[in-house]
Parts: sequence; C-alpha cells; structure tokens
Amino acid sequence: MIKKRVKQYIEKEKLFSPESKVFVALSGGADSVALLRLLHSIGYRCEAAHCNFHLRGTESDRDERFVRGLCRELGIPLHTTHFDTTGYAAEKHVSIEMAARDLRYEWFEKLRVEYRADAIAVAHHQDDSVETMLLNLIRGTGIKGLLGIRPRNGSIVRPLLCATREEIIRYLRHIKQEYVTDSTNTEDEYTRNKIRLHLLPLMEEINPSVKKNLTETGSYLNEAYAIYHKGIADAKERVMTPEGIRIDKLLEEPAPRSILFEILHPLGFNPSQINDITSALQSQPGKIFTNEKWRVIKDRSLLLIDSLQSEEEEENPPFRLISEEKSYTPDFQIPRGKEYACFDADKLNAPLHCRKWQKGDVFVPFGMKGKKKVSDYLTDHKFSIKQKEQQWVLCCGEHIAWLIGERTDDRFRIDEHTRRVVIYRTI
Amino acid sequence: MIKKRVKQYIEKEKLFSPESKVFVALSGGADSVALLRLLHSIGYRCEAAHCNFHLRGTESDRDERFVRGLCRELGIPLHTTHFDTTGYAAEKHVSIEMAARDLRYEWFEKLRVEYRADAIAVAHHQDDSVETMLLNLIRGTGIKGLLGIRPRNGSIVRPLLCATREEIIRYLRHIKQEYVTDSTNTEDEYTRNKIRLHLLPLMEEINPSVKKNLTETGSYLNEAYAIYHKGIADAKERVMTPEGIRIDKLLEEPAPRSILFEILHPLGFNPSQINDITSALQSQPGKIFTNEKWRVIKDRSLLLIDSLQSEEEEENPPFRLISEEKSYTPDFQIPRGKEYACFDADKLNAPLHCRKWQKGDVFVPFGMKGKKKVSDYLTDHKFSIKQKEQQWVLCCGEHIAWLIGERTDDRFRIDEHTRRVVIYRTI
Repeated sequence: MIKKRVKQYIEKEKLFSPESKVFVALSGGADSVALLRLLHSIGYRCEAAHCNFHLRGTESDRDERFVRGLCRELGIPLHTTHFDTTGYAAEKHVSIEMAARDLRYEWFEKLRVEYRADAIAVAHHQDDSVETMLLNLIRGTGIKGLLGIRPRNGSIVRPLLCATREEIIRYLRHIKQEYVTDSTNTEDEYTRNKIRLHLLPLMEEINPSVKKNLTETGSYLNEAYAIYHKGIADAKERVMTPEGIRIDKLLEEPAPRSILFEILHPLGFNPSQINDITSALQSQPGKIFTNEKWRVIKDRSLLLIDSLQSEEEEENPPFRLISEEKSYTPDFQIPRGKEYACFDADKLNAPLHCRKWQKGDVFVPFGMKGKKKVSDYLTDHKFSIKQKEQQWVLCCGEHIAWLIGERTDDRFRIDEHTRRVVIYRTI
Repeated sequence: MIKKRVKQYIEKEKLFSPESKVFVALSGGADSVALLRLLHSIGYRCEAAHCNFHLRGTESDRDERFVRGLCRELGIPLHTTHFDTTGYAAEKHVSIEMAARDLRYEWFEKLRVEYRADAIAVAHHQDDSVETMLLNLIRGTGIKGLLGIRPRNGSIVRPLLCATREEIIRYLRHIKQEYVTDSTNTEDEYTRNKIRLHLLPLMEEINPSVKKNLTETGSYLNEAYAIYHKGIADAKERVMTPEGIRIDKLLEEPAPRSILFEILHPLGFNPSQINDITSALQSQPGKIFTNEKWRVIKDRSLLLIDSLQSEEEEENPPFRLISEEKSYTPDFQIPRGKEYACFDADKLNAPLHCRKWQKGDVFVPFGMKGKKKVSDYLTDHKFSIKQKEQQWVLCCGEHIAWLIGERTDDRFRIDEHTRRVVIYRTI
C-alpha cells in the first residue's frame, strides 16, 4: 500500500521515470532504509550513497558497516565517503549541521554528475515537512518558511513526502527490515523532538487531523507563493531602472517592504535592515545601509544599490560551473531553472571558457533569429549598473554560448538532429 | 507606557483622529474595560456599547450592572441592548457564538450610523491575534487564515492589537480598575484556552519570542497577501470572459487552483469541490458541479458559472444599503472599499431608489467627462452574463448615482464646494 502510493507520488510529481538511475542517500536510519527498499522493490535502478561524517565515534562506523551489509544483501551498488566534518565546520565558520549538510549535498551532486544519475532521492517524509513548518513558524518566518518541504529541488527529490513516519516504521516492521538509530541529539534534533513528541500531540488533541491540515496548508501556500512570486517579478519590472530602484514607483506598489525584501534579502540584508530601509523611503536623502558586500543609498528619487567588492574579487566568477553530458533520448527532461543551460554537444565545437561580458559582445538570444548586443539585452532587462558589471558569459570559441543565468544562445540549441546534450549548471 | 503606545498605534494605523467620536464595545471583561479606560484617558470622545446576550443567567445581568456603574463613574454615555441569542441561533440555524457575533456587529453598525460615530473600537489584543493564527493553522487554512487579526475592518477598529494580555492586566492593576470574568467556557474559548495555557507556553520553551515572531509573520503575510491579491485580480482579468472562464488561459497561470478558489469560494463552493473542479479542467467536457445557489459546468473550452436562483429571488437585492450623513471637514477620510460610495449631499436632490440596471442605462463614471453605457462598462470590466444580471444601481431621480459596488457617478461627486457628504454602504 505504501509502495503503491510512493510509486504514484513519483509519477504525479514527475520525480523520475521508470528508466531513471536514482541515487538514494542512505544514512542507515529508518527513513532512508525504507526509501531504498521501497524504490528497489518498485523496480527503479537504485544505487546508494552513504556519508560517514565521523561525528559519533564508533557509532558512525557501525552505521557504515550496517549500510554495507544491507546493500550487499540487496545487490545494490554502494558509494561511500568520509568527511572531516568538524574540521570543515571550523574552517568555514559554520555550525556542524550546516557543515554536514553542505558536504553531503556537494558530494551527492558530484556523484550524480560522475555516474550520470538522474536524481538523488532523500528520505524526508510528511512529518519532517510538518515539523519544518512549525519550526520555522516558531523561529519567525515569512511565506517561504510555511511552504513545507518540496518534492523536488533541482536534482534532489523526495519520494517519501507522501508517507508519514508511522507508515514508514510499519512498513519496515512488515518486511522485517532492521535499521540503525542515532543516539545523538543535535540542537536542531532536540527542537524537532520537542515538536514531534509534545507540540504536535497537543495540537492533535485540538484537532486530530492537524498534520493533514498543515500539509494541505503548505500546498495552498505553495500556490499562493507562485502567484506572489509572479507579482514580485512584475513589480520589479515596474520599479527597477538601470540606475536603481525608483522610490515613487515603489511606494505605489501594494507592499513596498516585500518587494524590497525580495530584492535585498538575496544580497544579504536582514529583515530588520530592510524594515529600516523601508522606513527611510520617505525621509531625507543621504541615508546609507551596508552589509559586508553591498551598500544601499537612499538618494533623492532613487534607492541605489552598490557592490562593495574589490576589483580583484570581481575577476573570479562568483559561481562554479559544472557540466554533464547525456544522450538525447525522448524522455530527456530539460532541467528548469536559471542555473541550467542545455546545449547540443556536437555544436559546441570549440574550446569553452568563462569571462565577464565586454562592450561589443553580441549573441543570438534563444528563440530569436537575429543577433542582439549583450549591452542592449541587459538594459532591456533592467539590469542596474552594478548588476551589469557582475554579468558573466560562457564562450564557445569566439561565440557566446550562454549569458550565464540569463539566456542561452540559439546557435547552440537542442534541435531535432541533436544526439547528445551537454548540461551546464552554476553552483 | 501602554497608553502612549496605544495612542501611537491609533495614529500610525489611522484608526481614528483626535476629534473622532468612538464607540467602545464594552463587555465588562478585562480587555474591553482597559480599552475604554485607555481611550478615555488619552482624551478621545468615547461612548460605550454593551450587549446583554442573556446566555449566562444572572452573570449576564451582573455584567450589565458592572458596566453601568463603570460608565457612571467615568461619566461616559452608555448604550445597552438585550438579545434573545438562543432564539436567534435556533431561527437562523447558526451556532450560539455565530449568533452573538452577528447580533453584536449588526447592532454596533446601527448605533454607529444612528449616533454618527466614526468608529467602533473592539478590544482584541496581540495574544488574541496570535491565538487566532494558531487556531486557524490547527483547523486547516490558507494564507488568509494566517494574517492574524487586522487593526481595521470597515468601521471596526482594534487599538489594543499593539498590547499583550499581560500588559493589559498590568495596566488595570496599576490603575486599580476592576473587571468581571466570564465563568463559561464555550467550545471556541475552550480551544483558545488550550492554545493559551498549554500550546503557547510549549512554543515559548522552544523560542521565548514566539508571540512576537508570530505577530511579525502575520504582518509579513499581510504584505504577501496584498501582492497575492493583486496577482489574483490580474489573473482574473486574463482568464475571465463575459461567457465564462477560459480554460486554456487558466491553465497557463502559475496556480490555477488558487485562481478558481478566489472566484468560486465566494460563491459558496468548498475547497474539496474546488479541487475536483481543478482536476476536471483537463478532462472530458460535460462535468457539472453544484451548490445551493450556483452551478459550474466544464464546457469544451470554457468553465461556465450559472446562478440557480429563481427569478423571484433575484428581484430582491442581495444586500442592504445603509447611509450616513456627515459634514465635509478637512479631516474627512473617504472610506475605502467597493462597499462604500460617497456623494455630495446637496447634489442628491431627487428621491433615491435601488433597482437592477436596464438596457439603455447610461452614467458618467467617476473621474470621466462623458456618458457611458452601463452595458459597455460591464463588458469592458469582463462581467459574465450572470454577473451582469446581478448588477444593481442606486438612482437619484432618473440618474444613476452609483453602479453599486463598482463606480459612482461623476455628477454627484464631492468637490471643493461640498458642505455635507452622504456615505452609502452595502452590507
């Protein structure tokens, strides 16, 4: 029953197809073990990926041994890796949890590209999603924090979001499958446990279907978010000019603070700074707000946004580019998102390199016939001076193949003759 | 300190002005007693309004006596009324709570118009708002249920939303003011108590500033909602034709279900029906969905919306019209919202009556110079056939003064010579 539901969910959410090669993130805990057994028994081509974070002494090694045994029994290829998580966390000045997360997802992506897998399946389930919503709500959030965990994020997919923790445990018991348990309690796990063991049961006393309701609320809010997101994009078009944000136009919008939030939060400004900037919109010009990398100046009629990065730093691209080649089969799904670019591999017949765009650069924007100046493209799309300075291109020989994050060049497009596809991605 | 904050909040949210006459809804409980004392001592012109719902035997009468005593001491005019709440609930087939609520707000509105008050102040505070958000979340909701309680809804204003329950009690203790307590526990109160006494303290263990965070989340979501709301209005423009909803256009939208929800929920369709209708969009034509008053038909390329109301019913307006006259002073605020229409009282020099619009009707839409056919206006604004049939007009003699809920006539507008204003409102 859970098996059928998971299969249907994978199909409904188009997570991957029956022929896909799927890597399953396998910690050895109940959820990931169930995920592997389910996908394997439905008949998907699975391989497993296990990270040993060396955070729990012998327990970490016990987990690795357990996972090895399980994969051997099932005849499933296993990939393992070892991380010095504590060292990485110290070096990067991030929490242990953040470090483990970064290391894990980075390695998954490397594996996926190297072994040409179609997706990385992780074992988040419905309770995780509900707990995340409540955790965000308690810590303070906006609409994004109330969307719950999504079934897909790039190549990371979550087939178990249609199942509850209880169903997963019942399934494992039913198929008599063992799993390991984690004896540590991180700060985050401690809080999640509190939500799981105390808060949710109390909410269920008020309404027994609270988990179902929260899941539905998450799904409604996802739709509201899609409409909100489009509204923000339209509003940006109205308020942004190449020089900065037009304050008069911004104040005509139904929610100026939200629009500023969506523009400035990605640049690292925090909600309290953004509130201050919103309050300053109608006050005297001259106020300046800064963070490590950016400066916002309240000018007379404009809000100016300046980068504080030095010239040197700017010569290194602020992203890494990874690529992957695939044969172009009928079930090939063009990956969505600004971080992706797909080309006909055979058309990329000159050496590839990355550089900043230059005056005089031209390209053929995807879907168009004629050439266009990159400068005109950027102006048409309301890039600020600083944003223009930050624009990179991927070149194939002398031609621009990709105005990175913006538009690919039509001359390298996939067409009916394409046999192999190269997918580029910025990370 | 609380006094200063309440004053600032009233000014910031433009709830009413220093000269306003404010009616305070006074139950005799802590919150409403504090509200009255605060507004009175800040210096606003207050009158009190007390409802005796006769739901708690002698306790109801004790409350009325208490309120009389309090107003006498303070020298504040008191209006009281008595309701047969149980009888009304039985007659209207609604819950006791719903009945009390309807009766109360209807009476407040009547009082406001009769005594020309500017606002009715009710005593909801920050904790009420937070509890409402959690209650909605537990019962299942969309974005609207997470906005919290708003400072203004028509003429109902809530000056205490800037204060917590604790601050209110502390204030009453400080000024040595007594209040009555309600010994009953309605179902709703029972749930709210559970949220207040158990759920919120547990959330505060996880994050002590959870109430503040929830309030902020509500405020962020209000902005997101404003953007969402505009997005929905724009989407309606794109998908609605006079004949019905264009299915192809609807499916191009980022969230078709939400758009259908915003169109069909006001007609009384429930979320589960709306999910079914959404699923039917891509299936065979011919499916029909009905509720008591409306029918939705999935046609080939359109979704048709038909009224099932009989001819007779349609001859009675589906609203009540109330009016109020005021002198036109510099601080006069034109009330917003489609339910309001403001006219120069002296220009309304013929008898007023309501009727459905008729073929051949013309009017001068507010802000325009020339006449326009009502039929053209409705077509331009994408009214469906059924919506057109539902359109009413307020006439002054032979002239249309208001295309109700849509546009007033320019010939009756307020101008620099206006001395008295008449405000019409549909309820």
